[in-house]
Amino acid sequence: MAAKPKLHYPNGRGRMESVRWVLAAAGVEGHGDREEISINSRSPFLGNHLLFQQVPMVEIDGMKLVQTRSILHYIADKHHLFGKDLKERTLIDMYVEGTLDLLELIIMHPFLKPDDQQKEVVNMAQKAIIRYFPVFEKVLRDHGQRFLVGNQLSLADVILLQTILALEEKIPNILSAFPHLQEFTVKISNIPTIKKFLEPGSKKKPPPDDIYVRTVYNIFMP
Amino acid sequence: MAAKPKLHYPNGRGRMESVRWVLAAAGVEGHGDREEISINSRSPFLGNHLLFQQVPMVEIDGMKLVQTRSILHYIADKHHLFGKDLKERTLIDMYVEGTLDLLELIIMHPFLKPDDQQKEVVNMAQKAIIRYFPVFEKVLRDHGQRFLVGNQLSLADVILLQTILALEEKIPNILSAFPHLQEFTVKISNIPTIKKFLEPGSKKKPPPDDIYVRTVYNIFMP
Repeated sequence: MAAKPKLHYPNGRGRMESVRWVLAAAGVEGHGDREEISINSRSPFLGNHLLFQQVPMVEIDGMKLVQTRSILHYIADKHHLFGKDLKERTLIDMYVEGTLDLLELIIMHPFLKPDDQQKEVVNMAQKAIIRYFPVFEKVLRDHGQRFLVGNQLSLADVILLQTILALEEKIPNILSAFPHLQEFTVKISNIPTIKKFLEPGSKKKPPPDDIYVRTVYNIFMP
Repeated sequence: MAAKPKLHYPNGRGRMESVRWVLAAAGVEGHGDREEISINSRSPFLGNHLLFQQVPMVEIDGMKLVQTRSILHYIADKHHLFGKDLKERTLIDMYVEGTLDLLELIIMHPFLKPDDQQKEVVNMAQKAIIRYFPVFEKVLRDHGQRFLVGNQLSLADVILLQTILALEEKIPNILSAFPHLQEFTVKISNIPTIKKFLEPGSKKKPPPDDIYVRTVYNIFMP
């Protein structure tokens, strides 16, 4: 299965960005290791190409994977980012699901009306500070280890770091009350595969701009 | 781990009903095999009991599981409802994710304004008929087997049957153009563990009524 993964999505972060993160963390990054197919119109949605007429879609190992979570799970399984047993796997799954709930707010934010965007930043900050970050801060404080689960890198660490960095773009001091999450952010960002992804020239997409928002509107709400 | 699972949720279907279905399909059903803790107020949400201050929550095997998908995945893993290898697992995961997108519309339906409820039934029917059911109809037609993946019962079959039956309550002829899904519905409904769950007196909850809707509003939007 030497063919490189092909990522089908509009040219921006959206729901595909988590996939880019996990591929990068797994070491599937850099020139020629994978390919991005930018979607700019409705036409890819008309054939049988996309199982539920939706993206993200990733061609990998002879499959055409859809549904963000399913894609993330497959890559995490393949690259040993899902713990060493079912209990670890389940903890990772729960942490990922919670973090994806928070990340979803960030993904939808640019599509809100301008008046609602500022209010939503407040909502996000509250959710992060009251509901999600205390959980992860406590996990890291209690076990004193570098990673969330099982003392090794997992999907949970990758998605949490993605979410923290995306939130910090909007709310720079979001971690001020969470010293263990601050340390986590520094340490995970310095893992070589992830460090490379955070440097200019990687497959990481920039924050959504007006062009991305218009492209997505044109595709999904023509 | 002989302790019986404890399900924490308001007294109705909502996001917990899929968990009830999968426990039943796995044979964890019947008198004394599990326990339902009905939530009727905000108070369970105030302690450290619920990881992300959310239900469904299931106490099982010494863990307090939250996040619907994580709970379903754990039970499916434990009871061999997740395929025989990673490719089957990934197909099951994709089918479940697609079906959960459709089921989510059904779960949210009773909480819409009365004027929007009828419109939403039309939307659900369209989504089911155009986007989701053709995929599963084709899968069943192409491989000619009884189950969606790998010729054995999986989480995908269970969640699809749950969704079909819930949709048929609102739209009785929803399967009229899908003969293989009709056959699937009959066959999966007749698996002994599932047949028992579909009979009166099981842990299956009735369709949402005004009392359930008011209870949920009182808990989540006081």
